[in-house]
Formats: sequence, C-alpha cells, structure tokens
Amino acid sequence: MINFASDNCSGVHPQILEALEEANHNAAIAYGDDIYTEKAIKKFKPIFGDNIEVYFVYNGTAANTLAISGITNSYHAIACAETSHLNEDECGAPEKFSGCKLITLPSKDGKITIDQIEKYLFDLDFEHRSQLKVISITQPTEFGVLYSNEEVKTLADFVHKNKLYLHMDGARIANAAAALQQDFKSITRDLGVDVLSFGATKNGLMFGEAVVFFNPNLCPHFKYVRKQGMQLHSKMRYISAQFDAYLTNDLWLKNAQKANDMTRLFHSKIKDISQLSVTQKVDANAIFATLPKKIIEKLQEEFLFYLWNPLMDEVRWMTSFNTTKEEVSLFYERIKTSV
Amino acid sequence: MINFASDNCSGVHPQILEALEEANHNAAIAYGDDIYTEKAIKKFKPIFGDNIEVYFVYNGTAANTLAISGITNSYHAIACAETSHLNEDECGAPEKFSGCKLITLPSKDGKITIDQIEKYLFDLDFEHRSQLKVISITQPTEFGVLYSNEEVKTLADFVHKNKLYLHMDGARIANAAAALQQDFKSITRDLGVDVLSFGATKNGLMFGEAVVFFNPNLCPHFKYVRKQGMQLHSKMRYISAQFDAYLTNDLWLKNAQKANDMTRLFHSKIKDISQLSVTQKVDANAIFATLPKKIIEKLQEEFLFYLWNPLMDEVRWMTSFNTTKEEVSLFYERIKTSV
Amino acid sequence: MINFASDNCSGVHPQILEALEEANHNAAIAYGDDIYTEKAIKKFKPIFGDNIEVYFVYNGTAANTLAISGITNSYHAIACAETSHLNEDECGAPEKFSGCKLITLPSKDGKITIDQIEKYLFDLDFEHRSQLKVISITQPTEFGVLYSNEEVKTLADFVHKNKLYLHMDGARIANAAAALQQDFKSITRDLGVDVLSFGATKNGLMFGEAVVFFNPNLCPHFKYVRKQGMQLHSKMRYISAQFDAYLTNDLWLKNAQKANDMTRLFHSKIKDISQLSVTQKVDANAIFATLPKKIIEKLQEEFLFYLWNPLMDEVRWMTSFNTTKEEVSLFYERIKTSV
Amino acid sequence: MINFASDNCSGVHPQILEALEEANHNAAIAYGDDIYTEKAIKKFKPIFGDNIEVYFVYNGTAANTLAISGITNSYHAIACAETSHLNEDECGAPEKFSGCKLITLPSKDGKITIDQIEKYLFDLDFEHRSQLKVISITQPTEFGVLYSNEEVKTLADFVHKNKLYLHMDGARIANAAAALQQDFKSITRDLGVDVLSFGATKNGLMFGEAVVFFNPNLCPHFKYVRKQGMQLHSKMRYISAQFDAYLTNDLWLKNAQKANDMTRLFHSKIKDISQLSVTQKVDANAIFATLPKKIIEKLQEEFLFYLWNPLMDEVRWMTSFNTTKEEVSLFYERIKTSV
Repeated sequence: MINFASDNCSGVHPQILEALEEANHNAAIAYGDDIYTEKAIKKFKPIFGDNIEVYFVYNGTAANTLAISGITNSYHAIACAETSHLNEDECGAPEKFSGCKLITLPSKDGKITIDQIEKYLFDLDFEHRSQLKVISITQPTEFGVLYSNEEVKTLADFVHKNKLYLHMDGARIANAAAALQQDFKSITRDLGVDVLSFGATKNGLMFGEAVVFFNPNLCPHFKYVRKQGMQLHSKMRYISAQFDAYLTNDLWLKNAQKANDMTRLFHSKIKDISQLSVTQKVDANAIFATLPKKIIEKLQEEFLFYLWNPLMDEVRWMTSFNTTKEEVSLFYERIKTSV
Repeated sequence: MINFASDNCSGVHPQILEALEEANHNAAIAYGDDIYTEKAIKKFKPIFGDNIEVYFVYNGTAANTLAISGITNSYHAIACAETSHLNEDECGAPEKFSGCKLITLPSKDGKITIDQIEKYLFDLDFEHRSQLKVISITQPTEFGVLYSNEEVKTLADFVHKNKLYLHMDGARIANAAAALQQDFKSITRDLGVDVLSFGATKNGLMFGEAVVFFNPNLCPHFKYVRKQGMQLHSKMRYISAQFDAYLTNDLWLKNAQKANDMTRLFHSKIKDISQLSVTQKVDANAIFATLPKKIIEKLQEEFLFYLWNPLMDEVRWMTSFNTTKEEVSLFYERIKTSV
Repeated sequence: MINFASDNCSGVHPQILEALEEANHNAAIAYGDDIYTEKAIKKFKPIFGDNIEVYFVYNGTAANTLAISGITNSYHAIACAETSHLNEDECGAPEKFSGCKLITLPSKDGKITIDQIEKYLFDLDFEHRSQLKVISITQPTEFGVLYSNEEVKTLADFVHKNKLYLHMDGARIANAAAALQQDFKSITRDLGVDVLSFGATKNGLMFGEAVVFFNPNLCPHFKYVRKQGMQLHSKMRYISAQFDAYLTNDLWLKNAQKANDMTRLFHSKIKDISQLSVTQKVDANAIFATLPKKIIEKLQEEFLFYLWNPLMDEVRWMTSFNTTKEEVSLFYERIKTSV
Repeated sequence: MINFASDNCSGVHPQILEALEEANHNAAIAYGDDIYTEKAIKKFKPIFGDNIEVYFVYNGTAANTLAISGITNSYHAIACAETSHLNEDECGAPEKFSGCKLITLPSKDGKITIDQIEKYLFDLDFEHRSQLKVISITQPTEFGVLYSNEEVKTLADFVHKNKLYLHMDGARIANAAAALQQDFKSITRDLGVDVLSFGATKNGLMFGEAVVFFNPNLCPHFKYVRKQGMQLHSKMRYISAQFDAYLTNDLWLKNAQKANDMTRLFHSKIKDISQLSVTQKVDANAIFATLPKKIIEKLQEEFLFYLWNPLMDEVRWMTSFNTTKEEVSLFYERIKTSV
C-alpha cells in the first residue's frame, strides 16, 4: 500500500535513525540531564533567538495540551477553530488536563479571525464566564492552508492588546516555513506567537515534539507541568539526539520541501481530472478533494488515504518527506484511469 | 563515567535498535492499526494467557497513572507504599489525572502488608472518605526487594475478598521474574494481579511500556483513557517493534539476568568492606548501602550513582543489562582502596 | 428598585421561611441522616414515581455539573446549546469537574434539535474524539422558550437509540410545568429524561436544588460525587425542610403560575409599544426585547433588569413568584411614557 | 435524643434566623452584588484588619478545598495532619479539585510540627516530586486540641522562610478564640496565617463559611475559583445576612463560649468516673474518651454521639452553642449510673 494517508505513516528519516544509533553509546544521566539534551536545546537558540525555553515531550497531543495548561488556570478559556486538532483530535485531553473550556470557532479552512473572537472579550471580568486567555491557531491548518504573516501578526497584536496569549500548533510548522520560504523565527516569534508546539514527528522523527516558550517568564514552572503531564522521558537523549539531527544541515527543511513539492506536483497533475474537485487551498503538503465514492473505494485498495468527510465524499491526500515522484505519478494515473 | 546510577541511564539494547531499523520500511497506518502492533500484542498471549488487553504507552509514569485511572472513579483511593514510585516520583500525576487520593503506607523496604490496609476498609460506604479501590505494589520494590509469591497472593486474595483491585508496578518486572526464576504469568496473573504496568524501558528499550489488564472487562474503554492521557503514539510501530524484539528469544530474560547477576557479583564482593553497610535485602539489580560521606563524594567523581538519603549517607547502586564484570570489579576496587 | 432582573433577586417565599423556622427545633443528625430529609425525599415519589434517586445540592451550577459528572467518564462529551447555562454561566465548572468536552450547538432560542447532534455520532468508537454521551437541554430555555413534549420525546428517543443519556436542566422546571399545565413527571420522566436538575431556588427557596435520577442504576455512587463535589450540606435539614414545604399544597405551582402570569400580563401590555420589539417567544417568565438604548438607561434608574445583548440593545425582563400586578403596571407605564 | 454528637447537629441560632427573616425584604441583586454582602464583608475589616479579601462559600469542604486550590498549582503538595478533615473527611475533594498531592503527617492530637515537614523541603526544585507549597493546620484540631500561639507562629515563620503558605482550617475557629481568650486576628493573621477557612456553620449558622485571605495579592482571581468550584450562591444575601448577625454584638463569641463552657463543665464532672478515660486534651468543645462498649451502646439509646474509634471503644462528645447545663448533668448522671 502506498501512503497518501498521513505524514504520520511515513516512518523515520535515515539520518534520524543514524542519530539514534550514535546516541546509543555509554551511559547518560536520565531525564534530560545529559549532553545530548544540552546540545539539542542549544540548537534552538540560533533558530529562535535567545531567551526561549525549550521542553521535549513525546507527542503533539501533549505539546498542545501542556503548552496551554502551562499558561492558564482552569477557569480560563481557549479559543480555537472548531476543526482544530486541539478540539477534535485529542479526545478531550486539553479540557481534562487544563480544566479549561475550549471556545470553538467555525472555520472552513481551519483559520480563525479577530472578529470571531471579539465578542468573548465582553465576558472578561465576569465571573460566570470562563475567562478567555489563549488563542490557539494551527499553522498550516489541519486543512493544509497557511495563515499569511500578516494574518498571524494581526491576531497576535489583537491578542496582546487584550492581555491574552497566542499559541501556535506547529505540528507541521516545517511545512509552513518551507512553503512560506522563511525561517522558523520569522513565522512564529517575530509575529508575536507566545508559545509554539514545535512538531517534528510528522516530518521524519520517530517520536518527540518540543514546546517552545518565547518568553522565559511565561511558564517558568513548566518542568513540573511536563512531569505531572506524564511527558518526561527517562532516556531523554533519544529525543534530544533526534532533534539535534533534525536541526542540523537543514534536514527539517529538506524533508518539508520534499513533502510540499510532492503535493504541489500532485496538485498540478490532478487539475485536469474533471470529476475531482479540490476543496481547499493547497498551501503545504495536503490536498482535500471530492470525487465519486466508487472511485474512492477503488483507489483505497491500492493507496492509503482517509475519507475525510463521508457526507460529501471528501478525501484527504497527504505527502511526506519520503513520498516519491513515482508514487505521485502512479497515484495520478490510477485516478485518471478510474474516473 | 561508569554507570551505577540507574538502568535508565543504560542505553538501548542492540537488538532493540535493530528492530527499530527493521520496522523503518514502508508506510504503516498510524496510531496502532499496523502489523507491527498486531504482532507485538500477539506476543503477550503465550506469555500471559488469553483474555488480556495490552496497551502501549510512552513511559512508566503513564503506565501507572493510566492503569489506575482506568479502574477508578475520582472518589476512590489507592493504597501504596509511601516510598512507591507512584507516590514519590510522578510529581502528583496520579492525583492530577485520576483525581483519587493516595493512601501512603510507611515501609522500610517498599513492601506493604494486609494489616496496614485493613483499617481503611472501615471507611467503605462512608461518603466522607475516599473509597479504597486499588492496592498498588511494586515488584521488585523501589529498594530492590522482592515480594514472595505467597506475599503477593495473600495481598491479592485480601484485595479481591474486599472487592478491590490489585495493581502491580512492574517497572522492573523482568528483574523480578529473573530473580524468582519464574515466568511473567506465574508472578503476576496467577497470583491475582488485576492490572500490570509492564516495564521494559529500564531493561533495554528506547521508550515504551505496556499496561496489561488480565480481564478484558476491567477497563474496556482504556483506549480513550490512553488517548486523553496523551499517551497514544502516532508512529506506534516503533514501540511495537521494540516489544516484539524484547519478547523474542527471551531477550527480556537475558537482559534482566545480566543486570541481576552483576548486582549479585557486586554484592558478594563488597561484603568484606567493613565501612560499608548494605541497608536492604539484595534481591534484584539494586544495592542500597551506607558508607562515609567523603568516600561517596570521591567515588562520584568516577562513577555515576545517586546519594539516596543524604541524612544517613545512603547510596543506591544499580546495574543494568550492559553492566560488565570489569565495571563491577573496577568499582569494587575503587571502594576498597578508598575506605 | 423594582425587580425585573431575575427570579434570583426575589427573596424567599414566606412559607419556605416558615418551614426553616419549624425545622429549627431539637438536634438532627448532620449530612442528611435526619427525618426532614427522609420526609422531603419521600415527597418526590408521588411526583416522579418510584425507582428514583434524589440528592440535594446547594445550587444549580452543582446540580448540572454533578449530574453530568455522575453519568460520564472524562473522555465523554456533552452536547448542549451554545447559549445554555451549562456552557455559558458556570465558569467552566462542567469541564473542570467532569473533565468532559462540551459540544456547543448554535441556537437562537436555546433549543437544540436532533439534526445538530447527528454528525457527532460518526465519532463514536473513534478514540481521537471525545465520545458523545449526554445531551443536555434546558426547559424552559435560558430565553424563556419551551420545548414541546413532542420535541423532548423526539430528542429522548434519539438519545436512547444511540445509547446516550438525556439531561434536563430544570432550573425553572416549575415554570415549564405551570406553562404547559402538566405535572412534573409528564414533562420529564415520561418523555425519557434520564436525569433532571430540579431547580427550586429561583422559585422561592433560599438555597438548594435537587438532582433526580429516574433510574437508580444510572449513578448508584452519586453520594460520593456530591461529597467530593463539595455539595453535601452538613445541616441538611434546612435544605430538606424547604423542599418539603415547596412540594406541599402545590406551593411550587402557585409560585410558578404567579411568575408566568405576571410575564403574560406584562407581555400583553407592552404589545402596543411600537418602539419595543419582543425577540423571543414568551412561554414562561421571561421577556426578551429590544428598545432604544436611551430608554433602557432611563428605565434602569428605577427598575432592576439586565441589558442582555449590548450589541443590539436587547434586554431581559423576568418576573417571579412575588412580582405584583402593580409593579407590572408601573413598569409598563414607565416604558410607555419613556418612548 | 439529646445531642452530644456534633455542633453540626445543633440547629441555627435564633438571632441568625432573625437575620434571615430581616433580609427577606425587597429584591436584591444576585451573586453578591447586594447591600447585605457589602455590609457583611465590611464587618470583617475591624476584626481582621485592612487589606483582606473575604469570600463566602457554602460549606467547610469548599472553604478548605478552594482556599488551597486558589494558592496552588496542581503540581504542588499540601502537608497536613493525617487526621485532618482536609485529608479524611472530604472524600478527596482537595485532590480532585486542586490536583495536588496531600502529604499526610501522623498525629495523635491533630497537631503537626516543623520537624515533620522538614524532610519534604529536600524535594523542592526536583521535578519528580510534588512541590510542597502549603501547610494546613486545624485550630482547634479535629480532636479539640489547641495550638498555642507560639506553636502557630513557629510554623508560620518556618513556612514563610521556605516560601510556603500557611492555611488554617478554622471550622471551629470561634471556639479557639473563646478558649484562648483572644480575638480572631491575634490567633490567625498576627501569627502569620496566610489564608483562613473561617467557619461559622458549626457555631450557629444555617449554611455558609468564609475564605479570608490576609493578603489581597495572594489570590486576586479567587472569584473565578469560587464560581468554577460551584460555590457562588445566587441569593447571596442570605449567607451575608447571617455573617452580619454573627459578627454583631459578639454573637460568635457568646456561642463559642457557651459550647466551650458546657464541655468544660462536662469534663469536670466525668473526672470521677473511673471506667472512663479521657484520651485527648480538652481545650475547646470536644471530649474524646474510652469507656466500656456496653455502656457506649446503652448511652446511645438516649444520646446522640459518635463512636470515634471502634477498635478502642473511643467516643467523641461534643457540645454546641445550645447545649444546656441540664443536658450535661443528665448525660453525666446516665454515664455515672451506667458504669
């Protein structure tokens, strides 16, 4: 089966595996007090600037949930797109662990705007309401669509004017950076993001994500949040070594570019198939499209991909760092001949 | 630095690394719906018998916390040794996630007994009290001491007579099995353990532990507990492949025997050092001992190990699957010449 | 100031006060093991039928939050109107205490329908989603609008077909019964409601609400939920005695009828004021209306009432058991002469 | 049945009832924005000094649980006596709501000391441990024993030196003040207590307790904690009016003195009964004593009181503001003639 299902299905990049092997020598103090972790965290400084705090956790559920828990009290609310991973795909981990309310905003493409948030500001100081404290956005969104830098900055300015925080779910932040042709800092910290879930697993790691605070005072006690959140790895060097490799020689960028390129190629090919209709902007490494149900079922015999919305026969096709041109061509051919 | 600090500091066994590499081919459905996971879970059946449920999680904090959360309601209480990892080393994760009270029982060696629990049964049905529901024991204990099968069975019978559950924290269950020269089932399920935190990371894995329910009806909804608990790995195959290798050709047993043997060897050597006093029974892969503070500090320049109890100059020395005879001899020599 | 703000502002009915005085003789065992509580709970049986469980709590926040906590696990979701008290007015108590996600459905009048819920059933069994378990409706809604019996039954049948539960927030259930000219059972249990927050404070009590389970197996452990939820009153007889009086000689009904009548009267009067526009159906004891901002401000100098929606100059006027015809007439006159 | 069971069984003082009736005129804004509440809170200022924050809640479970939740994060720990109400009598509400760990210290009389706490300071900054943040003491203890001012001050100084907080459970703080012949401030704020659960229900109120912060910066967001904690009363004036009366003309003191006097009288009488052995110091309004089981059972036919410890035939006898000399004499006579 050829994978167009998810970058989660794609395995580990060889250089990451190599880094794991190289880390497997000698003893290393557990729980992060080791040289691999020190080195990996240092790698974040030239990328995001000084005065940041970086914490490794196991997965994206935790990166999002703990980032938000670290900067809220349980009577706070977090506004996010109804379609956000935070709301739809964590089985309620954010509510359970933070105790907060999620305010879910309707969105077609996963993006949210100021005018959707404004009315919740009336409730500030009114003790009957969960107090809005965090706006969480996903870049690129769960529909593969990018916020422009202007859009993020507008949100950030609004957020800070109202003494809120801006969280960015960057599960695929590398794909965003690659697509925007900018570095990480320019599309996050420089725009006013306060805390970033820095994803890497979907872009070639075996496990591990990072929570990055762009202000060390934002959550100085996060090490306890992580530990109580069951996310402190004992053999930490094996997360750290992966991040070290990931941030070396632009591996992250090469992987993300590859994934994006393959989606762009695929998109350009399928344009001529009239029975197929692309339903979202194609900005990063995902395509959403509708096509006849029969064809979907037939394609799924050979290719892995998700039926996203069964009510409208919408599918999601996703590429990753190890998708090949041949796979794209083959998939295109099969669609072409199926319709 | 030579590691006598913890089996957590010991790295990954080569066969486990190999398994990770072998798993790194082709795509695999994420979140556990893959052939590696299917195969790994099947491996548990001949070991523990049928009618079990096996769930992989990232670490021991989660295995313990989620196992207990899965079989309790927040008004329940869990009785455990005051010195248990569950109580002392999880930064309150069990209370936070389960909402339960921990009833902490004093213990010198980490073991608890029926008579310590009995008085809490008076409170059953009295709504002012957290209702005792789970007894949690660690095998071997955090002090490297083993419960005998009779002791576990006595606890289990008592527990079931009173409609409670018995949880076993088996962070080092392989060391227990090796030391007792019995298989896993004989020292857990056969004695009446209801749910086991099946540790493996300390015995050679890179990451991953398993929660094993010995009755499928005990927590049929555990998949939600795990997901909401932030412990469902996306690229699950990389945990599964490790477990598969771990349970193949008795790798678990060889590793545990090696660790235990090195401790036994070390123990036999240090007996002749009069300034050193071993403070706990040496049943598995840990030695607790007191020795003069000056010597401790000198030894720590060359060897990694923890000052366990600074008030009484007590240290913990721990061996693991890759401790060598040479390291043991060298450490012994250094102690000998230091005193 | 004359109260058209809320039935919460209306004080305690004299017969309730009298009952409190009468209960103030001799000693009574604390925490509900007293004759007042026994008697009060017995009073619920002829009203709702046998095989029910009744628990007194302090307030409506708790009745709703604990009712829902008692029948869910933290990975569940509760669907309710976005405008429901449960979602908007409890400062996140439901999320905090139950750990559940609220799925909030848009609604103009506070009512929700099957077709809004249906799409969440796709997610059942999919561990990434909070599992829908409870539908919560408010009768009458926060906008003073009633569900018809058919509407409730349709929801209940749908709910049970899908193995969910139906919770009814009956903060003003007496006003609903009075308006529908039916008894309590006919508009709750007979239609398929599983658990009811039986409000009484807004209808003349000093403090105290009841949680009524229509199936004793639904939450047999609720006494622990209540105690851990900080809602077990020590001097319980003083809640019980109020409920006893409330359910004697139809005090509840007389109070609710009075409140409803005054709203009906008020509504009939204001119809001729053209600058005023009633925005919701007037089914119980509340009127929502828009009128010029200047007039609102002038009226608020003499009358207590809330500016409900400042964006559209919408106010809420509410009557209660002790609103008088004279107050209604006076208010009407003032509006009339102000416009 | 004559009540020696608990001050919770004693009903409401007539002046409190009167205050409730007086408050029952006109409308009053709900949720505390009323003149009764304003007045009641002002009454606390001359008693405790300026710069305090006072919040009314329903009961003692909530006063303790929310006070502690307001000044902790979930990774903190609270040290208290094993026998404290906080640990033993709240069905785990503190753990559930705060997420914190309780560190329970053995105690014969309910008092705790510095040396029991000291060892937990080693764990500060070590992320594997719940971080000790609050010491909670009960004055008088659950065994009716008083801390001396020196003892409280010693604890408070220690606590502040280590950047912790001191919480006092004052469920019967009036009995303490009366017994110590000092005002409230002298035995709380002046000694270094940071936050007080100011009990009143056991001393004559119908319902309602207060949480008093002696530093407004300690928990400026407590109004949200209270609301999310399901403890904001809608018809708040009825709690406020009680507190107003309670703090007027030393009603609190007269009530507490009466309760203490009756216990003192009772204690002086029973001294001559040799089969009876008083097991705790008698400092306030409770006596703990052992006597033959048969006699206990016989007495319970006529008098309400608790068998405290069935293992040693220990009972608790408690007096309250409305215990009479005649009741004390009668009880004494019955014991005398029973033995």
